[in-house]
Amino acid sequence: MRVMGVDPGLTRCGLSLVESGRGRQITALDVDVVRTPSGDPLHRRLLAISDAVDHWLDTHHPDVLAIERVFSQLNVSTVMGTAQAGGVIALAAAKRDIDVHFHTPSEVKAAVTGNGNADKAQVTAMVTRILALQAKPTPADAADALALAICHCWRAPMLARMAAAEAQAAQQRSKYLAKVKAVR
Amino acid sequence: MRVMGVDPGLTRCGLSLVESGRGRQITALDVDVVRTPSGDPLHRRLLAISDAVDHWLDTHHPDVLAIERVFSQLNVSTVMGTAQAGGVIALAAAKRDIDVHFHTPSEVKAAVTGNGNADKAQVTAMVTRILALQAKPTPADAADALALAICHCWRAPMLARMAAAEAQAAQQRSKYLAKVKAVR
Repeated sequence: MRVMGVDPGLTRCGLSLVESGRGRQITALDVDVVRTPSGDPLHRRLLAISDAVDHWLDTHHPDVLAIERVFSQLNVSTVMGTAQAGGVIALAAAKRDIDVHFHTPSEVKAAVTGNGNADKAQVTAMVTRILALQAKPTPADAADALALAICHCWRAPMLARMAAAEAQAAQQRSKYLAKVKAVR
Repeated sequence: MRVMGVDPGLTRCGLSLVESGRGRQITALDVDVVRTPSGDPLHRRLLAISDAVDHWLDTHHPDVLAIERVFSQLNVSTVMGTAQAGGVIALAAAKRDIDVHFHTPSEVKAAVTGNGNADKAQVTAMVTRILALQAKPTPADAADALALAICHCWRAPMLARMAAAEAQAAQQRSKYLAKVKAVR
Protein backbone atom coordinates (compact mmCIF):
# COMPACT_ATOMS: atom_id res chain seq x y z
CA MET A 1 0.00 0.00 0.00
CA ARG A 2 1.29 3.41 -0.98
CA VAL A 3 0.37 6.08 1.57
CA MET A 4 0.78 9.84 1.24
CA GLY A 5 1.10 11.60 4.60
CA VAL A 6 0.20 15.27 4.95
CA ASP A 7 0.95 17.70 7.77
CA PRO A 8 -1.23 20.57 6.54
CA GLY A 9 -0.25 24.21 6.93
CA LEU A 10 -0.15 27.47 4.99
CA THR A 11 3.41 28.54 5.83
CA ARG A 12 4.86 25.03 5.76
CA CYS A 13 2.97 21.97 4.51
CA GLY A 14 4.72 18.61 4.97
CA LEU A 15 4.18 15.96 2.28
CA SER A 16 5.48 12.39 2.42
CA LEU A 17 5.12 9.15 0.52
CA VAL A 18 5.76 5.71 1.97
CA GLU A 19 5.18 2.15 0.83
CA SER A 20 4.16 -0.48 3.38
CA GLY A 21 5.65 -3.96 3.00
CA ARG A 22 5.30 -7.24 4.94
CA GLY A 23 4.39 -6.90 8.61
CA ARG A 24 5.37 -3.54 9.98
CA GLN A 25 7.99 -2.85 7.31
CA ILE A 26 7.73 0.60 5.68
CA THR A 27 9.91 2.31 3.07
CA ALA A 28 10.09 6.09 2.61
CA LEU A 29 9.80 7.07 -1.07
CA ASP A 30 9.66 10.87 -0.92
CA VAL A 31 9.31 13.78 1.47
CA ASP A 32 9.03 17.51 0.93
CA VAL A 33 7.82 20.70 2.55
CA VAL A 34 5.75 23.16 0.52
CA ARG A 35 6.09 26.78 1.64
CA THR A 36 3.91 29.77 0.76
CA PRO A 37 4.77 33.42 1.56
CA SER A 38 2.81 34.74 4.55
CA GLY A 39 2.30 38.08 2.75
CA ASP A 40 0.35 36.49 -0.14
CA PRO A 41 -3.48 36.57 -0.17
CA LEU A 42 -5.02 33.45 1.37
CA HIS A 43 -6.60 32.19 -1.85
CA ARG A 44 -3.23 32.43 -3.67
CA ARG A 45 -1.52 30.45 -0.90
CA LEU A 46 -4.22 27.77 -1.07
CA LEU A 47 -3.75 27.59 -4.84
CA ALA A 48 0.02 27.10 -4.47
CA ILE A 49 -0.56 24.26 -1.99
CA SER A 50 -3.26 22.72 -4.19
CA ASP A 51 -0.95 22.84 -7.23
CA ALA A 52 1.88 21.13 -5.31
CA VAL A 53 -0.46 18.41 -4.02
CA ASP A 54 -1.97 17.90 -7.49
CA HIS A 55 1.57 17.36 -8.80
CA TRP A 56 2.36 14.86 -6.04
CA LEU A 57 -0.86 12.90 -6.60
CA ASP A 58 -0.33 12.74 -10.36
CA THR A 59 3.34 11.74 -9.97
CA HIS A 60 3.14 9.30 -7.07
CA HIS A 61 -0.39 7.83 -7.37
CA PRO A 62 -0.88 7.03 -3.67
CA ASP A 63 -3.60 4.52 -2.68
CA VAL A 64 -4.68 6.65 0.26
CA LEU A 65 -4.07 10.04 1.89
CA ALA A 66 -3.44 10.39 5.62
CA ILE A 67 -3.99 13.98 6.84
CA GLU A 68 -3.47 15.34 10.33
CA ARG A 69 -6.80 16.14 11.96
CA VAL A 70 -6.62 19.74 13.16
CA PHE A 71 -7.99 20.83 16.49
CA SER A 72 -9.02 24.37 17.20
CA GLN A 73 -7.71 24.23 20.77
CA LEU A 74 -4.33 25.23 19.27
CA ASN A 75 -3.23 28.73 18.23
CA VAL A 76 -6.41 30.40 16.92
CA SER A 77 -4.64 32.52 14.28
CA THR A 78 -2.90 29.61 12.54
CA VAL A 79 -5.50 26.89 13.02
CA MET A 80 -7.98 28.30 10.50
CA GLY A 81 -5.33 28.44 7.78
CA THR A 82 -4.28 24.89 8.65
CA ALA A 83 -7.88 23.70 8.35
CA GLN A 84 -8.30 25.49 5.02
CA ALA A 85 -5.08 23.94 3.68
CA GLY A 86 -6.27 20.51 4.87
CA GLY A 87 -9.60 21.02 3.11
CA VAL A 88 -7.92 21.90 -0.17
CA ILE A 89 -5.68 18.81 0.08
CA ALA A 90 -8.61 16.47 0.89
CA LEU A 91 -10.42 17.93 -2.13
CA ALA A 92 -7.48 17.12 -4.45
CA ALA A 93 -7.70 13.48 -3.32
CA ALA A 94 -11.50 13.35 -3.65
CA LYS A 95 -11.23 14.63 -7.24
CA ARG A 96 -9.08 11.57 -8.04
CA ASP A 97 -11.30 9.17 -6.05
CA ILE A 98 -8.45 8.57 -3.58
CA ASP A 99 -9.55 7.69 -0.05
CA VAL A 100 -8.72 10.15 2.75
CA HIS A 101 -8.22 9.36 6.43
CA PHE A 102 -7.66 11.82 9.25
CA HIS A 103 -5.53 10.99 12.28
CA THR A 104 -5.18 13.14 15.40
CA PRO A 105 -1.70 14.24 16.53
CA SER A 106 -1.95 11.93 19.57
CA GLU A 107 -2.93 8.94 17.41
CA VAL A 108 0.15 9.61 15.29
CA LYS A 109 2.46 9.99 18.28
CA ALA A 110 1.04 6.85 19.92
CA ALA A 111 1.43 4.82 16.71
CA VAL A 112 5.01 5.91 16.08
CA THR A 113 6.48 6.20 19.59
CA GLY A 114 4.02 4.24 21.75
CA ASN A 115 3.29 7.45 23.66
CA GLY A 116 0.45 9.81 22.68
CA ASN A 117 2.21 12.70 24.41
CA ALA A 118 5.65 12.23 22.83
CA ASP A 119 7.53 15.43 21.92
CA LYS A 120 8.75 16.41 18.45
CA ALA A 121 12.29 15.09 19.07
CA GLN A 122 10.98 11.64 20.05
CA VAL A 123 8.71 11.49 16.99
CA THR A 124 11.59 12.49 14.67
CA ALA A 125 13.93 9.93 16.29
CA MET A 126 11.40 7.10 15.88
CA VAL A 127 10.54 8.10 12.29
CA THR A 128 14.28 8.05 11.46
CA ARG A 129 14.64 4.60 13.01
CA ILE A 130 11.45 3.04 11.57
CA LEU A 131 12.31 4.16 8.04
CA ALA A 132 16.04 3.43 8.51
CA LEU A 133 16.91 6.92 7.27
CA GLN A 134 20.54 8.07 7.04
CA ALA A 135 19.70 11.43 8.63
CA LYS A 136 16.87 12.94 10.67
CA PRO A 137 14.19 14.44 8.41
CA THR A 138 13.96 18.24 8.77
CA PRO A 139 12.07 20.50 9.29
CA ALA A 140 9.64 19.04 11.84
CA ASP A 141 6.84 19.25 9.23
CA ALA A 142 8.70 16.70 7.07
CA ALA A 143 9.08 14.32 10.03
CA ASP A 144 5.40 14.84 10.94
CA ALA A 145 4.27 14.03 7.39
CA LEU A 146 6.30 10.80 7.50
CA ALA A 147 4.92 9.96 10.96
CA LEU A 148 1.37 10.41 9.63
CA ALA A 149 2.01 8.00 6.76
CA ILE A 150 3.56 5.43 9.12
CA CYS A 151 0.62 5.83 11.50
CA HIS A 152 -1.83 5.16 8.68
CA CYS A 153 0.06 2.05 7.47
CA TRP A 154 -0.08 0.54 10.94
CA ARG A 155 -3.64 1.62 11.78
CA ALA A 156 -5.09 0.68 8.36
CA PRO A 157 -5.71 -3.06 9.13
CA MET A 158 -7.46 -2.11 12.39
CA LEU A 159 -9.53 0.60 10.66
CA ALA A 160 -10.50 -1.91 7.94
CA ARG A 161 -11.59 -4.47 10.57
CA MET A 162 -13.64 -1.80 12.36
CA ALA A 163 -15.33 -0.75 9.10
CA ALA A 164 -16.09 -4.41 8.26
CA ALA A 165 -17.55 -5.01 11.72
CA GLU A 166 -19.71 -1.89 11.43
CA ALA A 167 -20.94 -2.92 7.99
CA GLN A 168 -21.79 -6.42 9.31
CA ALA A 169 -23.65 -4.96 12.29
CA ALA A 170 -25.64 -2.66 9.99
CA GLN A 171 -26.50 -5.65 7.77
CA GLN A 172 -27.67 -7.74 10.72
CA ARG A 173 -29.71 -4.82 12.01
CA SER A 174 -31.53 -4.42 8.71
CA LYS A 175 -32.06 -8.22 8.45
CA TYR A 176 -33.54 -8.23 11.96
CA LEU A 177 -35.80 -5.27 11.17
CA ALA A 178 -36.99 -7.03 7.99
CA LYS A 179 -37.80 -10.16 10.04
CA VAL A 180 -39.71 -8.15 12.66
CA LYS A 181 -41.69 -6.49 9.88
CA ALA A 182 -42.48 -9.88 8.27
CA VAL A 183 -43.72 -11.31 11.63
CA ARG A 184 -46.02 -8.33 12.12
CA MET B 1 -19.53 44.85 -10.33
CA ARG B 2 -20.80 41.30 -10.00
CA VAL B 3 -20.20 39.91 -6.51
CA MET B 4 -20.66 36.31 -5.37
CA GLY B 5 -21.32 36.05 -1.62
CA VAL B 6 -20.54 32.83 0.24
CA ASP B 7 -21.61 31.73 3.71
CA PRO B 8 -19.37 28.64 3.95
CA GLY B 9 -20.48 25.43 5.65
CA LEU B 10 -20.44 21.67 5.17
CA THR B 11 -24.09 20.97 6.02
CA ARG B 12 -25.46 24.14 4.43
CA CYS B 13 -23.40 26.46 2.24
CA GLY B 14 -25.10 29.69 1.15
CA LEU B 15 -24.26 31.08 -2.29
CA SER B 16 -25.49 34.37 -3.72
CA LEU B 17 -24.89 36.59 -6.70
CA VAL B 18 -25.59 40.32 -6.81
CA GLU B 19 -24.83 43.15 -9.22
CA SER B 20 -23.99 46.58 -7.85
CA GLY B 21 -25.34 49.58 -9.72
CA ARG B 22 -25.12 53.37 -9.22
CA GLY B 23 -24.53 54.54 -5.64
CA ARG B 24 -25.76 51.96 -3.15
CA GLN B 25 -28.12 50.24 -5.59
CA ILE B 26 -27.79 46.44 -5.64
CA THR B 27 -29.75 43.79 -7.56
CA ALA B 28 -29.96 40.15 -6.51
CA LEU B 29 -29.36 37.78 -9.43
CA ASP B 30 -29.30 34.36 -7.79
CA VAL B 31 -29.23 32.65 -4.40
CA ASP B 32 -28.99 29.01 -3.39
CA VAL B 33 -28.00 26.76 -0.51
CA VAL B 34 -25.80 23.74 -1.19
CA ARG B 35 -26.31 20.87 1.25
CA THR B 36 -24.12 17.80 1.84
CA PRO B 37 -25.14 14.75 3.93
CA SER B 38 -23.49 14.76 7.38
CA GLY B 39 -22.88 10.99 7.11
CA ASP B 40 -20.63 11.34 4.05
CA PRO B 41 -16.82 11.33 4.42
CA LEU B 42 -15.36 14.85 4.74
CA HIS B 43 -13.45 14.75 1.44
CA ARG B 44 -16.63 13.73 -0.45
CA ARG B 45 -18.57 16.62 1.12
CA LEU B 46 -15.81 19.06 0.16
CA LEU B 47 -15.91 17.71 -3.40
CA ALA B 48 -19.68 18.23 -3.61
CA ILE B 49 -19.29 21.84 -2.43
CA SER B 50 -16.36 22.43 -4.78
CA ASP B 51 -18.37 21.06 -7.75
CA ALA B 52 -21.34 23.33 -6.93
CA VAL B 53 -19.08 26.40 -6.62
CA ASP B 54 -17.24 25.51 -9.85
CA HIS B 55 -20.62 25.40 -11.59
CA TRP B 56 -21.63 28.79 -10.15
CA LEU B 57 -18.32 30.42 -11.12
CA ASP B 58 -18.49 29.05 -14.67
CA THR B 59 -22.15 30.05 -15.05
CA HIS B 60 -22.19 33.46 -13.38
CA HIS B 61 -18.60 34.75 -13.91
CA PRO B 62 -18.46 36.97 -10.81
CA ASP B 63 -15.79 39.71 -10.63
CA VAL B 64 -15.05 38.97 -7.00
CA LEU B 65 -15.90 36.48 -4.23
CA ALA B 66 -16.87 37.64 -0.73
CA ILE B 67 -16.54 34.87 1.85
CA GLU B 68 -17.40 34.99 5.54
CA ARG B 69 -14.26 34.96 7.67
CA VAL B 70 -14.62 32.13 10.18
CA PHE B 71 -13.60 32.50 13.78
CA SER B 72 -12.70 29.59 15.98
CA GLN B 73 -14.41 31.10 19.03
CA LEU B 74 -17.60 29.49 17.71
CA ASN B 75 -18.67 25.85 18.06
CA VAL B 76 -15.42 23.86 17.81
CA SER B 77 -16.96 20.82 16.08
CA THR B 78 -18.47 22.78 13.18
CA VAL B 79 -15.87 25.53 12.78
CA MET B 80 -13.20 23.26 11.30
CA GLY B 81 -15.57 21.99 8.61
CA THR B 82 -16.63 25.57 7.89
CA ALA B 83 -12.99 26.63 7.49
CA GLN B 84 -12.30 23.66 5.20
CA ALA B 85 -15.34 24.48 3.05
CA GLY B 86 -14.20 28.14 2.88
CA GLY B 87 -10.73 27.04 1.80
CA VAL B 88 -12.10 24.88 -1.01
CA ILE B 89 -14.28 27.77 -2.22
CA ALA B 90 -11.41 30.29 -2.13
CA LEU B 91 -9.34 27.78 -4.13
CA ALA B 92 -12.02 27.53 -6.84
CA ALA B 93 -11.84 31.33 -7.24
CA ALA B 94 -8.02 31.40 -7.24
CA LYS B 95 -7.97 28.78 -10.02
CA ARG B 96 -9.98 31.22 -12.17
CA ASP B 97 -7.92 34.25 -11.10
CA ILE B 98 -10.98 35.73 -9.38
CA ASP B 99 -10.20 37.96 -6.40
CA VAL B 100 -11.35 36.82 -2.95
CA HIS B 101 -12.19 39.01 0.06
CA PHE B 102 -13.07 37.86 3.54
CA HIS B 103 -15.46 39.80 5.78
CA THR B 104 -16.15 39.05 9.44
CA PRO B 105 -19.74 38.44 10.60
CA SER B 106 -19.74 41.76 12.46
CA GLU B 107 -18.48 43.66 9.40
CA VAL B 108 -21.36 42.13 7.42
CA LYS B 109 -23.96 42.95 10.09
CA ALA B 110 -22.63 46.50 10.46
CA ALA B 111 -22.68 47.10 6.70
CA VAL B 112 -26.21 45.77 6.20
CA THR B 113 -28.01 46.87 9.39
CA GLY B 114 -25.71 49.57 10.80
CA ASN B 115 -25.24 47.40 13.91
CA GLY B 116 -22.36 44.89 14.24
CA ASN B 117 -24.36 42.91 16.79
CA ALA B 118 -27.61 42.64 14.83
CA ASP B 119 -29.47 39.32 15.08
CA LYS B 120 -30.37 37.01 12.19
CA ALA B 121 -33.92 38.39 11.88
CA GLN B 122 -32.64 41.97 11.54
CA VAL B 123 -30.09 40.94 8.90
CA THR B 124 -32.75 39.04 6.93
CA ALA B 125 -35.18 41.97 7.14
CA MET B 126 -32.56 44.47 5.90
CA VAL B 127 -31.40 42.14 3.09
CA THR B 128 -35.03 41.77 1.96
CA ARG B 129 -35.48 45.56 1.96
CA ILE B 130 -32.12 46.47 0.33
CA LEU B 131 -32.65 44.02 -2.53
CA ALA B 132 -36.40 44.80 -2.75
CA LEU B 133 -37.22 41.09 -2.58
CA GLN B 134 -40.84 39.89 -2.66
CA ALA B 135 -40.22 37.45 0.21
CA LYS B 136 -37.63 36.92 2.93
CA PRO B 137 -34.78 34.69 1.74
CA THR B 138 -34.66 31.38 3.62
CA PRO B 139 -32.89 29.53 5.16
CA ALA B 140 -30.68 31.93 7.13
CA ASP B 141 -27.65 30.77 5.09
CA ALA B 142 -29.22 32.20 1.93
CA ALA B 143 -29.83 35.57 3.65
CA ASP B 144 -26.27 35.51 5.03
CA ALA B 145 -24.79 34.87 1.59
CA LEU B 146 -26.77 37.84 0.20
CA ALA B 147 -25.69 40.01 3.16
CA LEU B 148 -22.04 39.15 2.46
CA ALA B 149 -22.35 40.17 -1.17
CA ILE B 150 -24.08 43.46 -0.18
CA CYS B 151 -21.37 44.10 2.42
CA HIS B 152 -18.67 43.63 -0.19
CA CYS B 153 -20.36 45.97 -2.71
CA TRP B 154 -20.53 48.73 -0.12
CA ARG B 155 -17.07 48.15 1.41
CA ALA B 156 -15.27 47.68 -1.93
CA PRO B 157 -14.62 51.41 -2.64
CA MET B 158 -13.21 51.86 0.88
CA LEU B 159 -11.06 48.71 0.57
CA ALA B 160 -9.77 49.94 -2.80
CA ARG B 161 -8.86 53.35 -1.30
CA MET B 162 -7.06 51.64 1.59
CA ALA B 163 -5.10 49.39 -0.78
CA ALA B 164 -4.15 52.43 -2.93
CA ALA B 165 -3.01 54.36 0.16
CA GLU B 166 -0.94 51.41 1.34
CA ALA B 167 0.67 51.00 -2.09
CA GLN B 168 1.49 54.75 -2.15
CA ALA B 169 3.00 54.58 1.35
CA ALA B 170 5.14 51.60 0.35
CA GLN B 171 6.31 53.46 -2.76
CA GLN B 172 7.26 56.55 -0.74
CA ARG B 173 9.05 54.37 1.79
CA SER B 174 11.18 52.71 -0.88
CA LYS B 175 11.88 56.12 -2.54
CA TYR B 176 13.00 57.51 0.84
CA LEU B 177 15.21 54.47 1.50
CA ALA B 178 16.79 54.83 -1.95
CA LYS B 179 17.51 58.52 -1.20
CA VAL B 180 19.07 57.67 2.20
CA LYS B 181 21.24 55.05 0.51
CA ALA B 182 22.35 57.53 -2.20
CA VAL B 183 23.32 60.14 0.46
CA ARG B 184 25.44 57.55 2.29
